[in-house]
Amino acid sequence: MAVTEEVTVDVTETLAKFVVQHRGADLPGRVRHEAARSLLNWVGCAVGGSRHETVERALAALGEFSGPRVATVLGRADRLDIMLAALMNGITSHTFDFDDTHLRTVIHPSGPVASAILALAERQPVSGEDFLHAFVLGVEVECRIGNAVYPSHYDVGWHITGTTGVFGAAAAVGRLLHLNQEQMTWAMGIAATQASGLREMFGTMCKPFHPGNAGRNGLLAALLASKDFTSSTRSIEAPRGFANVLATGRRYEEITERLGDTWEILLNTYKPFACGIVIHPIIDGCIQLRTEHGIGPDDIRSVSLEVHPLVLELTGKKTPRKGLEGKFSVYHSAAVALIHGAAGEAQYGDDVVSDPVVVGLRDRVDAVVSESLHEDQARVTIHLRDGRTLERFVEHAVGSIDMPMSDADLEAKFRGLTDGILSAPETDALLQHCWTVGTLPDASVLAKMAVPGAKTAAG
Amino acid sequence: MAVTEEVTVDVTETLAKFVVQHRGADLPGRVRHEAARSLLNWVGCAVGGSRHETVERALAALGEFSGPRVATVLGRADRLDIMLAALMNGITSHTFDFDDTHLRTVIHPSGPVASAILALAERQPVSGEDFLHAFVLGVEVECRIGNAVYPSHYDVGWHITGTTGVFGAAAAVGRLLHLNQEQMTWAMGIAATQASGLREMFGTMCKPFHPGNAGRNGLLAALLASKDFTSSTRSIEAPRGFANVLATGRRYEEITERLGDTWEILLNTYKPFACGIVIHPIIDGCIQLRTEHGIGPDDIRSVSLEVHPLVLELTGKKTPRKGLEGKFSVYHSAAVALIHGAAGEAQYGDDVVSDPVVVGLRDRVDAVVSESLHEDQARVTIHLRDGRTLERFVEHAVGSIDMPMSDADLEAKFRGLTDGILSAPETDALLQHCWTVGTLPDASVLAKMAVPGAKTAAG
Repeated sequence: MAVTEEVTVDVTETLAKFVVQHRGADLPGRVRHEAARSLLNWVGCAVGGSRHETVERALAALGEFSGPRVATVLGRADRLDIMLAALMNGITSHTFDFDDTHLRTVIHPSGPVASAILALAERQPVSGEDFLHAFVLGVEVECRIGNAVYPSHYDVGWHITGTTGVFGAAAAVGRLLHLNQEQMTWAMGIAATQASGLREMFGTMCKPFHPGNAGRNGLLAALLASKDFTSSTRSIEAPRGFANVLATGRRYEEITERLGDTWEILLNTYKPFACGIVIHPIIDGCIQLRTEHGIGPDDIRSVSLEVHPLVLELTGKKTPRKGLEGKFSVYHSAAVALIHGAAGEAQYGDDVVSDPVVVGLRDRVDAVVSESLHEDQARVTIHLRDGRTLERFVEHAVGSIDMPMSDADLEAKFRGLTDGILSAPETDALLQHCWTVGTLPDASVLAKMAVPGAKTAAG
Repeated sequence: MAVTEEVTVDVTETLAKFVVQHRGADLPGRVRHEAARSLLNWVGCAVGGSRHETVERALAALGEFSGPRVATVLGRADRLDIMLAALMNGITSHTFDFDDTHLRTVIHPSGPVASAILALAERQPVSGEDFLHAFVLGVEVECRIGNAVYPSHYDVGWHITGTTGVFGAAAAVGRLLHLNQEQMTWAMGIAATQASGLREMFGTMCKPFHPGNAGRNGLLAALLASKDFTSSTRSIEAPRGFANVLATGRRYEEITERLGDTWEILLNTYKPFACGIVIHPIIDGCIQLRTEHGIGPDDIRSVSLEVHPLVLELTGKKTPRKGLEGKFSVYHSAAVALIHGAAGEAQYGDDVVSDPVVVGLRDRVDAVVSESLHEDQARVTIHLRDGRTLERFVEHAVGSIDMPMSDADLEAKFRGLTDGILSAPETDALLQHCWTVGTLPDASVLAKMAVPGAKTAAG
């Protein structure tokens, strides 16, 4: 960690210059579309997580300290100042661990960036075009910094979504605040010196706190820089800068090369199922067979799974008793996929893991490890009571980079997340505005429409 | 850094339990007195720094987002919500780098802790006794964690005041919020996962930002924990916890042993002079000779200094042009000590470094390195125009652990800091309340009296 190298390129300044100078008109269409998909998925996750105990407790602790209540907590009636709103929306959007993933670094890129700029957009007018552009730039910044220090940074124990997210949020907000290049390097410096978040926190409420805190602190960094609060101009590459202090290895060319030619958001992925990604191929295969053959739990004698070794290592729990434990059970996941045809947050409720029908089928599921499978592969074999055998080999699980969720898949996921919080017409209108975010006169409509009872004609 | 050890003691829980259970009645008298000295010095530094550009810019950026304006920015008319007030007072108190130092770890302990609890005391009644007790416990927590990871943690590049300060602030606020033991471990976990601050920022406004941010975030951690926002209960010692991720070496016994028997605040020191500590023996010697012999600049033909090697390495600037550069000039420092009999913030103003009298004497100062001197030693020899030679060997500079500033010295320093901001009667009253903090019915009076024009009968 203390090994430092001489750096000849001004890494931070190069990145800051790019963020300040890049023209929205130069964003390729597929980048825009992927940004809309990311935002849509993020809004759905934030609304879906908005009633969770995690955010209830955070609001109970911090709500009283809010400044001007101009910003929305998605999915709720609460309004907060922009820094607290960024914190809360970052928390809710990651509560189910169902948000987007930049697989190369395991960063969840949207949370910190979208939370921060959506809150800012409720303080001052931001067009949908500028919003989309800033979002893409923020994601680019955090993922490029992540690329430069992954995997050593993650291996050391840092929750990379928190540590790089604060840069992404600072850059995106800084762009919307029209920072000049020097101010943008300061914003990144103020972000760097707040970079934090430990993997030790996984399994506690502090995990979703990380993207929220990154959004809050990135916003703070850009606001301070906008008033010329000074910082290092070499916060990433200096001998005692971010990359040397928080990682044991680093590749600065991942940050500085091909800026504007490649876009990290094109590597973003979305989880179709509300559980660890290693179980996804199994769930995918089960749902495919259920849909194609119209089978129900009573038709099934037993289920045999062939899985990648990590599956049983991470999700080998035979008899989950709580909903959260169900996420660590490939057996439960296969059962709900076959019975419900889904594995959303609802399928991991406490009631579902103790449902006799689910338990009955779960106990008829076996799994064996196959060393020849890739992580996004699995084989599902169903033995029916009528003697038939159904089999499906999943080459690439849905949601993987090779088999991305379709726009329709994302819409279905979104509806599952907002169900019970927003009405169907409200969900329809919000979806429509997410898809067309780049053309909105005022991007804050995304926040205002994500509240139950809001007028859907607001935009 | 990735080297982790099995830990058998529950480090975080042991520390949390101590903070929750320790009885104020068991605080030794000399601990109380040192706490009052630390608070007095901190209040003076905060008032003294309250007009600096650093806090002006921070207020311009963030003031509009304040929630309920119940808390004081010391030395100013501004009022802010408690989290922003903790941020601002932490910033001002470290702006001159004139606050207290726990020399063993180079932590500046008061900033994060005092900023956080004084803000809290303006939200809910806190007696002076409870305030003093929480302050001592917060300092104990941050310095013990610092002891456990110093020096590797600092060597890696962390600004230890920021990274450990957030624990101290969380613990002290947590005590005042009456957290139970589990909540206290969570508060420390929420603190751990926000621990941040890079030494790369030294020389920029982000350096004083660190104690302020530690105070702000420690306060947030305790507030969240008070509403059962969960975190790791092993945030310090877990394989991916603070001590493993942010340091290459660690000694947990520094945290867990002799709790309640030893007090880190007794190792606290105070700078008599507003510059790097290596020049202090020279300034001390010059002031002693000036005072004893009543000499002025015109009496002096030349000055010869013998100094520790670090002095010329760090402060060898011959011709400083800006006030800040004067802090890195042993020549300027000797000159102002001989002319003004002081080396406070006023002696490092732009006007003073260009004052012809100061420049004239500065040019008659020479310095040579002596390998035999300790860091807190120096020899000053003054050749007078009348042919006499005055010499002083400084065995331990004033302000060092062996030659602490007296209470009267601290009062004089305080007056120098508040001069021009508070009136003399206001300063007198504030001093009196700092000394008697442990007996105040309401500790928030310290904040309210640190504002120009406040009624001095407030307490």
